[in-house]
Amino acid sequence: MENLEKRHSILKLGSNKADILSAINQHAPISRTRLAELFDLSFTAVTHIVNEFIEIGVIKEVGDGHDLKPRGRRASFLQLNEDYGYIIGLEVTDVRVKSALADFAGNIKAVKRIIFENHSKDYLISTIIESIESLVEENNISWERVKGIGIGMHGLVDYENGISLTFPSSEEWANVPLKSIIEERFNIPAKLDARLYVATLAELIYGEGRYNPDFVYFNSGPGNGFNIGLVFSGQILRGKDGFAGQFGHLVLDPKGPRCFCGSRGCLVTLASPLAIEKKAIEAINEGINTSLTSIYKEKGTILFKDIADSALKGDKLSVNLIEEAGRYLGLGFSYVINLFAPPLVVLAGTLNSAGSMLLDTIKREIALHSVPQVYQGIEIKFSSLEEDVAARGAVVLIIREHLKKIAEAS
Amino acid sequence: MENLEKRHSILKLGSNKADILSAINQHAPISRTRLAELFDLSFTAVTHIVNEFIEIGVIKEVGDGHDLKPRGRRASFLQLNEDYGYIIGLEVTDVRVKSALADFAGNIKAVKRIIFENHSKDYLISTIIESIESLVEENNISWERVKGIGIGMHGLVDYENGISLTFPSSEEWANVPLKSIIEERFNIPAKLDARLYVATLAELIYGEGRYNPDFVYFNSGPGNGFNIGLVFSGQILRGKDGFAGQFGHLVLDPKGPRCFCGSRGCLVTLASPLAIEKKAIEAINEGINTSLTSIYKEKGTILFKDIADSALKGDKLSVNLIEEAGRYLGLGFSYVINLFAPPLVVLAGTLNSAGSMLLDTIKREIALHSVPQVYQGIEIKFSSLEEDVAARGAVVLIIREHLKKIAEAS
Repeated sequence: MENLEKRHSILKLGSNKADILSAINQHAPISRTRLAELFDLSFTAVTHIVNEFIEIGVIKEVGDGHDLKPRGRRASFLQLNEDYGYIIGLEVTDVRVKSALADFAGNIKAVKRIIFENHSKDYLISTIIESIESLVEENNISWERVKGIGIGMHGLVDYENGISLTFPSSEEWANVPLKSIIEERFNIPAKLDARLYVATLAELIYGEGRYNPDFVYFNSGPGNGFNIGLVFSGQILRGKDGFAGQFGHLVLDPKGPRCFCGSRGCLVTLASPLAIEKKAIEAINEGINTSLTSIYKEKGTILFKDIADSALKGDKLSVNLIEEAGRYLGLGFSYVINLFAPPLVVLAGTLNSAGSMLLDTIKREIALHSVPQVYQGIEIKFSSLEEDVAARGAVVLIIREHLKKIAEAS
Repeated sequence: MENLEKRHSILKLGSNKADILSAINQHAPISRTRLAELFDLSFTAVTHIVNEFIEIGVIKEVGDGHDLKPRGRRASFLQLNEDYGYIIGLEVTDVRVKSALADFAGNIKAVKRIIFENHSKDYLISTIIESIESLVEENNISWERVKGIGIGMHGLVDYENGISLTFPSSEEWANVPLKSIIEERFNIPAKLDARLYVATLAELIYGEGRYNPDFVYFNSGPGNGFNIGLVFSGQILRGKDGFAGQFGHLVLDPKGPRCFCGSRGCLVTLASPLAIEKKAIEAINEGINTSLTSIYKEKGTILFKDIADSALKGDKLSVNLIEEAGRYLGLGFSYVINLFAPPLVVLAGTLNSAGSMLLDTIKREIALHSVPQVYQGIEIKFSSLEEDVAARGAVVLIIREHLKKIAEAS
């Protein structure tokens, strides 16, 4: 049902027509009346525009399941047409590739995960290709029905040219033209962008961004992804070359551990899931008394989830590790808050499994290090979106490409 | 002369008509042809709109002094009409108030400075009033010709209600309704905003912002003003309650000196002109050998300018103080650059007198602490605007209020 009290935020696509399609994507189901209000157009003008898109088959009319018009006829709302085609969205982190199959309305139909066994360039590329291929074949989808492949990529990305510039844990990976590789392999249009960008996109279209034009989005991985998306007036602030949001590389301890970026003591080396797992294993090897030891002996490794679970059960080492990470994160967020004063900070990703223990530490530390009047009233909360958010954002990347082209052609 | 190669950035005012007036303010002298291009309107439509404004007298036609049309007739360009009225702009810092008298095109006609002798609330208010009164009377301006009074205020400001929330060095100053105080005293519309906001506004309208839609603006005082303005897509990012840009309160040393904001080790306590002056005086009192000692004995105080001058002459203490400040600033800017990736960082204010000694240290430190690919190609430069930039920005605040109202009424 339409939320009529809240202010609708719209992620722009360029022209008025494209923005209307974008609003339908972001606020479905949405009525013509509401669209007319949002775009300061007459009901007739909106009807004229959307009818054209209904004819093409890119959007469709639905009842929203709640609203009834006075005479009992179902109110007519608009949404993207699921049947317009399939989209594939990939999230590539430094630990795995996740591929998602979605309909054109962005509903996820199937998800597949492949853990990376090594970080050689050839292996990574072939595994990414395999994740697409097997997803389509296992779900008996005709390749002709796949409209595009979106990729949210770990590391720095040249999104304009579809080039993956870096993959921090792979030394031989540099300037890989992943977009062309995928397009040539599958003969389907592909689009590459940074993992954090597509995750922010998902939060904008399906999450807090629907009604919050200004917020900061943090995604803590898995792996070494540790950046933020900055949303200002409903649009994503990309910065020079799309490199804005390197939260993980704020140097919080100039004498700290060497980071893969070349600096020392970056936040990602101090508080990322991987950094915390590493510290836990070091402590176990030093013989510190912790319930993690038995897990480590059994599995041969420790995941952040294990540490979060143990912390909740009172394991002292685990609590210390999570609180230490929370203190570093809180200092980092105090910078973000002092500089941007976002009304809302949304936390997503692996670290969320530590729950309120982490959140409370972060909030306490922000309060210590930010200007009180600035922090006052700023909401810090966990994202309510499901875990495969970045793959879903990669789907949206493709949906929006299509909406833009359709609007241009109309 | 119009710069036709560069992309014109436009600070929006709301409606299309208001934006055209804003573009004339920001890019004067500007031709109708260029306006038509910028707003995607026909030449006729632009002519229709601007003719109305010429009739009202808010803009006027000028030759730009360079361009001649083929047959020798002077090309006709548009600018704000200087004679439309006078504007007063104030910059209030914690060391002084500067008042500027300007014509409606924003040209500064006279400037007056009054150093604050103390920080009692009554004294500050009466001195601010005096700075307006004497400026108008000394310049023989009729009060009827003054269109408005803009104030760029030190501390946190509730710009929507015209309330000065804090004045850090004055303990009795809290929630002072400065806008109403000025309006009641002079019976002239006033507008209050943060000093850093109006300084950023001046850089946007008259400086780098004319052709750079994305940049970060830093103004280092005088006094304890030490914040940044964030400009994204040609608009100023204000944040919750307009509090964005608290660069001076990034906590760089959690065990450092207590700051007036309540935290410890804020950048402003480590690298502001006042902080550096304080460190110099401490060193002199400790008997450290420095050429500053004689200046201190003679004047009873040390200004940052003295330290900068001594550093240029090779005084070791002065060099150390400036390089230390540069290192802190560089670390702070590495955060801004990693988070925001602005293509351009513009430095203004008191610290600029230290010149390349400071700039080189800042750049070196940014390179050490930011992601290399992000920092690569980012330009860090001194503002080329004159020193009274914030007062000029306070004038622009009023000009824009008028342009908006004129567009709404038309």
